[in-house]
Amino acid sequence: MTDVEPLPSWRPGRTRDTLLGFLADAASIDPEDRVAYFDNDGTLWCERPTYVQYEFYLDALRRRVREDPTLAQGAEFRAVLEGDIAAVGEIGLERIALALAGLFQGIEPGAFTQEVRTFLRTSTHPTLGRSVSAVRYRPMLELLDALRELDFSIGVVTGGGTEFVRSVSRELYGVPPERVVGTMIAYELGQDVAGRPALQRTARVLGDVNEGATKVTNIQTYLGRPPVLAAGNSAGDTELLEWAAAADGPHLSLLVDHDDPDREFAYVSEAQTFAAGEPITATAQRLGWTTVSMKHDWDTVFAENGHG
Amino acid sequence: MTDVEPLPSWRPGRTRDTLLGFLADAASIDPEDRVAYFDNDGTLWCERPTYVQYEFYLDALRRRVREDPTLAQGAEFRAVLEGDIAAVGEIGLERIALALAGLFQGIEPGAFTQEVRTFLRTSTHPTLGRSVSAVRYRPMLELLDALRELDFSIGVVTGGGTEFVRSVSRELYGVPPERVVGTMIAYELGQDVAGRPALQRTARVLGDVNEGATKVTNIQTYLGRPPVLAAGNSAGDTELLEWAAAADGPHLSLLVDHDDPDREFAYVSEAQTFAAGEPITATAQRLGWTTVSMKHDWDTVFAENGHG
Repeated sequence: MTDVEPLPSWRPGRTRDTLLGFLADAASIDPEDRVAYFDNDGTLWCERPTYVQYEFYLDALRRRVREDPTLAQGAEFRAVLEGDIAAVGEIGLERIALALAGLFQGIEPGAFTQEVRTFLRTSTHPTLGRSVSAVRYRPMLELLDALRELDFSIGVVTGGGTEFVRSVSRELYGVPPERVVGTMIAYELGQDVAGRPALQRTARVLGDVNEGATKVTNIQTYLGRPPVLAAGNSAGDTELLEWAAAADGPHLSLLVDHDDPDREFAYVSEAQTFAAGEPITATAQRLGWTTVSMKHDWDTVFAENGHG
Repeated sequence: MTDVEPLPSWRPGRTRDTLLGFLADAASIDPEDRVAYFDNDGTLWCERPTYVQYEFYLDALRRRVREDPTLAQGAEFRAVLEGDIAAVGEIGLERIALALAGLFQGIEPGAFTQEVRTFLRTSTHPTLGRSVSAVRYRPMLELLDALRELDFSIGVVTGGGTEFVRSVSRELYGVPPERVVGTMIAYELGQDVAGRPALQRTARVLGDVNEGATKVTNIQTYLGRPPVLAAGNSAGDTELLEWAAAADGPHLSLLVDHDDPDREFAYVSEAQTFAAGEPITATAQRLGWTTVSMKHDWDTVFAENGHG
């Protein structure tokens, strides 16, 4: 550790003490086992009023519709463009998401990455008036830094699109693309116009949506190591946080509680995957996880405005 | 680069000049794009007379049969234990492989890792009389070191079992588990005897066997970046090597040619996936890859005997 006091944006108190205690204990963990996984939306950055990824797809859709207005006539896109919540509910989020993913069907991964990076550099959060990279949570970035000082291998495990998060994971979190596990669109190997081999996105999800127990099996499949620290904020993180809590040595399961309507948002996720209708904050208490109160534990919520 | 002359086990000549030229050019590659993938069997270590992984499963089978002799009565295991090549051919390698993988059905990934590590530390190659870790190719280890000096991200992309290679990838090649992509056995999330969440191996392959075009799509799926250097030795590496050759900047596609019956083995893989019946060495010449002659280009073939 450096001489700088770690976790400066965390207010003194039980939560910060728990984090500092874990960081002190981590020195006793075999370096090979120093592994930490973080959910992304609502854990590392803001997910309200909609996911950043949804804003990206909406922006892409609007640009495509300007080129080809007939695109707006499909039921899925019409519902999205009109912000028609009832129609979206009737069509189903999965069909909507697949239709949006289909906007990029056939393009190469590098081209997709460039589109995401451009969006991130040029867009603003719809209600907070901050640049998109500035809706990252500063206290969580400090925790990532403290773990990196201890040579932790840090992964981002998201229900969102793998390639969306990978495009910006190094810039946002210092995490390389191979340590991002999310919901993956399948590729096909074809050829580019010059006849060279080229990967092309399909509009098909590979395997299952990366939530719940799938987060755990996907981590083993993609990354090969269990966590000693896991952080999440919603029902879909339940199994991941339970898995971290099952580690033999020092371990930490963190639940970010969105209880700060003044600085961020106030909402509770219900853990349908674990116990019907139980609020995730109650699950955390029952299972002995550490609950992070955004309102009480965080002195500053967001990273500095600006890019890079 | 350090002051030590790189690639000391490579004999002076065109192949070594090509490698040194690529290493010099690599400084002009964006650090984010310094990505190199290596096939494992026959590229980083010896794959004859059988795969090391096959020896591991055979050893595990013999131990299980000592505990439960009835196991030896199944057609697959009888063929394996008797070394009955005709019966193995009739049953088919895929059914044999799945039967062997089934020996570990239900166990946790950590237990499998320990079994592989024990095997590697205690076993000897069946004909070379060397420890298993000493059938690694010393010139290739030197190439890995030279790439690491340039901050390359190095991955192992194998047709063999992902978890088998992951168990020893750091010890053998300095590659962390998340940068190994192979043929993956699916997991299920269950509970251990204490009621804690626990992953259990199934006997089912997840997706496809990691050969040919699947190596390319799996690399994008698991690791998210294309290579500027790829090395392989057989038909199943054709698409991977073509992909590396399609990079815009400096790139290198290496084919290890097993042409040294005195020090290793002499055999040629036929590229059935690319052009029916074409020897892979002819494919290399046609597509302008760099062929590494084990006999002529390598001053020393194997890593030092011993472990660690």
